[in-house]
Amino acid sequence: MGTTAEYECPHRVPVPPSKPFLKCLQTSLKETFFPDDPFRQFKNQPASRKFLLGLQYFVPILEWAPRYTFDFFKADLIAGITIASLAVPQGISYANLASIPPIIGLYSSFVPPLVYAMLGSSKDLAVGTVAVASLLISSMLGKEVSPTENPKQYVQLVFTATLFAGLFQASLGILRLGFIVDFLSHATIVGFMGGAATIVCLQQLKGMLGLLHFTHETDLVSVMRSVFGQFHQWRWESAVLGCCFLFFLLLTRYFSKRKAAFFWINAMAPLTSVILGSLLVYVTHAEKHGVQVIGHLKKGLNPPSVSDLAFGSPHLAAAIKTGIIIGVIGLAEGIAVGRTFAMFKNYHIDGNKEMIAFGMMNIAGSCTSCYLTAGPFSRTAVNSNAGSKTAVSNIVMATAVMLTLLFLTPLFHYTPLVVLSAIIIAAMLGLLDYEAAIHLWKVDKFDFFICLGAYLGVVLGSVEIGLIIAIMVSLLRILLFVARPRTIVLGNIPNSGIYRSMDQYPIANKVPGILILQIDAPVYFANASYLRERISRWIYEEEDRLKSAGETSLHYVILDLSAVGSIDTSGISMLEEVKKNVDRKGLKLVLANPKSEVMKKLDKSKLIDTIGQEWIYLTVGEAVAACNFMLHTWKSNPVAVDYHAQDNNV
Amino acid sequence: MGTTAEYECPHRVPVPPSKPFLKCLQTSLKETFFPDDPFRQFKNQPASRKFLLGLQYFVPILEWAPRYTFDFFKADLIAGITIASLAVPQGISYANLASIPPIIGLYSSFVPPLVYAMLGSSKDLAVGTVAVASLLISSMLGKEVSPTENPKQYVQLVFTATLFAGLFQASLGILRLGFIVDFLSHATIVGFMGGAATIVCLQQLKGMLGLLHFTHETDLVSVMRSVFGQFHQWRWESAVLGCCFLFFLLLTRYFSKRKAAFFWINAMAPLTSVILGSLLVYVTHAEKHGVQVIGHLKKGLNPPSVSDLAFGSPHLAAAIKTGIIIGVIGLAEGIAVGRTFAMFKNYHIDGNKEMIAFGMMNIAGSCTSCYLTAGPFSRTAVNSNAGSKTAVSNIVMATAVMLTLLFLTPLFHYTPLVVLSAIIIAAMLGLLDYEAAIHLWKVDKFDFFICLGAYLGVVLGSVEIGLIIAIMVSLLRILLFVARPRTIVLGNIPNSGIYRSMDQYPIANKVPGILILQIDAPVYFANASYLRERISRWIYEEEDRLKSAGETSLHYVILDLSAVGSIDTSGISMLEEVKKNVDRKGLKLVLANPKSEVMKKLDKSKLIDTIGQEWIYLTVGEAVAACNFMLHTWKSNPVAVDYHAQDNNV
Repeated sequence: MGTTAEYECPHRVPVPPSKPFLKCLQTSLKETFFPDDPFRQFKNQPASRKFLLGLQYFVPILEWAPRYTFDFFKADLIAGITIASLAVPQGISYANLASIPPIIGLYSSFVPPLVYAMLGSSKDLAVGTVAVASLLISSMLGKEVSPTENPKQYVQLVFTATLFAGLFQASLGILRLGFIVDFLSHATIVGFMGGAATIVCLQQLKGMLGLLHFTHETDLVSVMRSVFGQFHQWRWESAVLGCCFLFFLLLTRYFSKRKAAFFWINAMAPLTSVILGSLLVYVTHAEKHGVQVIGHLKKGLNPPSVSDLAFGSPHLAAAIKTGIIIGVIGLAEGIAVGRTFAMFKNYHIDGNKEMIAFGMMNIAGSCTSCYLTAGPFSRTAVNSNAGSKTAVSNIVMATAVMLTLLFLTPLFHYTPLVVLSAIIIAAMLGLLDYEAAIHLWKVDKFDFFICLGAYLGVVLGSVEIGLIIAIMVSLLRILLFVARPRTIVLGNIPNSGIYRSMDQYPIANKVPGILILQIDAPVYFANASYLRERISRWIYEEEDRLKSAGETSLHYVILDLSAVGSIDTSGISMLEEVKKNVDRKGLKLVLANPKSEVMKKLDKSKLIDTIGQEWIYLTVGEAVAACNFMLHTWKSNPVAVDYHAQDNNV
Repeated sequence: MGTTAEYECPHRVPVPPSKPFLKCLQTSLKETFFPDDPFRQFKNQPASRKFLLGLQYFVPILEWAPRYTFDFFKADLIAGITIASLAVPQGISYANLASIPPIIGLYSSFVPPLVYAMLGSSKDLAVGTVAVASLLISSMLGKEVSPTENPKQYVQLVFTATLFAGLFQASLGILRLGFIVDFLSHATIVGFMGGAATIVCLQQLKGMLGLLHFTHETDLVSVMRSVFGQFHQWRWESAVLGCCFLFFLLLTRYFSKRKAAFFWINAMAPLTSVILGSLLVYVTHAEKHGVQVIGHLKKGLNPPSVSDLAFGSPHLAAAIKTGIIIGVIGLAEGIAVGRTFAMFKNYHIDGNKEMIAFGMMNIAGSCTSCYLTAGPFSRTAVNSNAGSKTAVSNIVMATAVMLTLLFLTPLFHYTPLVVLSAIIIAAMLGLLDYEAAIHLWKVDKFDFFICLGAYLGVVLGSVEIGLIIAIMVSLLRILLFVARPRTIVLGNIPNSGIYRSMDQYPIANKVPGILILQIDAPVYFANASYLRERISRWIYEEEDRLKSAGETSLHYVILDLSAVGSIDTSGISMLEEVKKNVDRKGLKLVLANPKSEVMKKLDKSKLIDTIGQEWIYLTVGEAVAACNFMLHTWKSNPVAVDYHAQDNNV
């Protein structure tokens, strides 16, 4: 200790006092599962108030209903009717996509929105069925039970899958595992949604071309083979009608995009198409010339479906798997949509609460003849544009759908399927977010490849393959980052005590006789041996360079640990080996700015005594100053400061 | 820009010049796959020299053979004979464990060591069969084909699995994917090896108790049920003999540990036991009283086994799976052992080269009637202790084994199996590294639980389950760290311009009106939304605190990005949202010390213009100085510095 005592070091790095294990565990569990500190408002409150707050926490409508005004209601009424006009054709279309009776699509826009209005925390989210989940249901469950040959059993499986989706979503929320959804990155979602939109559009070729038989596969190759294999069965009447309506829908979208006040043109377009198409078929009797129509729809509200839940089915495993996948996808889309609009209107959404709301609405839905619902982007955007103030717009929509179910279903008898296909295609084209993909390419190539992987996986493989590829590549990126952290050589910024990367700041200068390395990531088993090799390579490269340049030889190696937020036992062994290696070369290892966790583990592993606490400095600047001081003392008087002898005493 | 121009900022953070994409890709691929820069020595050399160096690179014996001396040979001869005396009984024992004919265990100590001597880069590693892989072979392949009912087909599967293990190992090395082995952390290996040693010991109860039937399962419960279910078949003669030899072996180990010079007592003990046991059986005819013996061993060298490779077998998939698993385990143990001794004797081991050497020796082995070999710890330790200088000790061992095969096999006819069991148990007890587990508990609780998970998974489930548990938990830890990075509030260390964590340095003081937050990890999709929530929570908590304390209200939020080594598009969106959020509260967002990658992405996403490059500082100290300057100018003359008006111009 004598050596460094001669140099007056202004600051010391203390070893943090050790906390009891249980306390640490509690803190870290709280940070992991309750990062938003939801109990904050419960502090210092009487019990009755706590109960009320608790109730409001779980049933948000209790919180905002007392403040609800007539003005709000007027806005919500308009928004609700607008989204209802979208909900009816979309409900029928997506049910078609899921290979279930169209009426279930309408049922699904009645009960779930009511449940969400009670429990949801978003003011903009409009509840409804979603295209991707619908397609997934038909492609995953259609493999188990044929929807055409065994429709009753198929529908039972769909309800069962919806129940498990709901249970899974609610339990994620209750267990506060909302962060699992975060592992679906933005890039993944862009690629995945684009791919899903593409295959959903491809599926619509069946309706557009009036084909009677179609492949059960969803990938591009199978669909193209199926479409061109039946070239002679194409019905031009159907195709012409479909293209006209698609053109109409895209035209209205184009106009509404040009002027925000015209948003209702776009919102009303699907219903208008349905009415026009139905009238046209009714007048021309086109249903007898190859234009397929919906046909008879049962009048009346949702029948209960508890007895339809197929727990004893041999396909239960498939229903559970489908439920979990569509549950996750529904959540990912719904929460992303909710967050986007919340950010836009400056309020906060609680991911875990949303999960519980989504879960409860699907559990309730599965018992009342509904299939999976979430928060579709298109409907939510229309809802928000139409001026919705609260979730009451969902209640209005549900009421409108109820009236339709009670009185208006016969009107849909002549609705041509091709119009529904046009509505789906128009909605899906909006999800092909090529601008976002270009942005990804510009900002982050790796993210772009994740996005492309997800897209190609979905289009050429299947929805599951795309999802798996995207998640694997995303995780691989994190692991690669952790496995190959950067080590950076620092130099001195002239006329300052600041040390920065020599790559990033070309003005920075090397300090003679001292090599300053920064480790740019937490040190873990996955990167410990890489770092050991890399650090020793930096040292010998620097020694080579100095030798060939004939400069002062190396005396000190300073490791800047500012960016090492965490370390494990493998990391500690790595530092131990670096220390041995540096000692063997007759150099001295100095640490700068270790964080508290690093200090704690250095202390517990006794490595701190091997390194010597006096060789740990608060900043790189102070470490360099101390090294320089000793370097010059040693040069002028090598015996006085013999740190190799010193070493053996420690 | 007018605002900050008034304050003379000493340093600026430049946007790094953008590099071409391919160049970046090349650099990062090189860093990922060639971190040790193996081509360094090839630089600036003539072509003939390059060829020689290349040959020496792939066949290390060419490098050191010219420098080989007679002194080295004397040392290697002694070490080689010592490990041969260990290799013969161990080879027979482990072959027994793998349910293959004992002679294959001897074959496996002949060809593979010769191959390793040519290609390996370790001077200490002694090649041989390993207990864990042997047990895995019998438990994984035994499920497919019964070794007792269909021995020929079983042995063919074993050779095939060995071939695939070799191919997998070699291709990992050739593709420079050596870092995959790093994902088996030290904690995982301690727990896994301990568990494997435990179940190997449990399997020996069969031999020790002289049982004829035994379970094919390896878990504790099955083995115990099997052992106690046959209570009446226990043979006391066998048990007594086994316990005597076990006691003898443990006693010699104890003595050799007390004095390093007595290592040879321990090294010779297994062979001594085999000789004593065989003599005893020969003299007392114990084989007729329930003591099982090895029986007839074929004389002669390894027969070729290329035609035995079962590519057309219906169990090929199982052979490939087994091959990959035993290949990875063999590599993990072998490389860890090689590195340990290399570090001890201060030379360097190239992980990728070792993988190629291991792979080649197993490929060669599979064609010459050998099964999987690796670098067992016990044999390597004896080799190193016996003074081996180079891989020639492996050649000596192979020669000794060859002589045994040619002339001495009949001598093993009367060797009792119980002695082999005692040898295995004694070796395995040395692998139960409870001290390492205690060290893990002290230094890092999480690592301890990984270790415990691996141990319990192996003992109660199976080797594969244990390995999967340990790897999953290790990965989970990395992901949890990335998903829940710490955000730290910084304060000023008195009388300095240094800002450090207020938790770690209790002397640090808050700066009035400024909140300084440090993000402690790379910002990725997995943590972006958490960080957004956490940062906004820090801000409102600070505002609450200031309000209730009646102090100066908050004006600036400084984000210290020193520890953010990497960022993706989700991270950039997060910063964008934080910026919006901070703006809405009427505060100003200031960045300190962004690294080059962060600056690059800020620039490409145009976020740098939204934040304003003048609000990005080199250090927290400079950022605070600038904020303080403006805070005071603003207080004395609020109109002159209206940064909200300023904001709209950007």
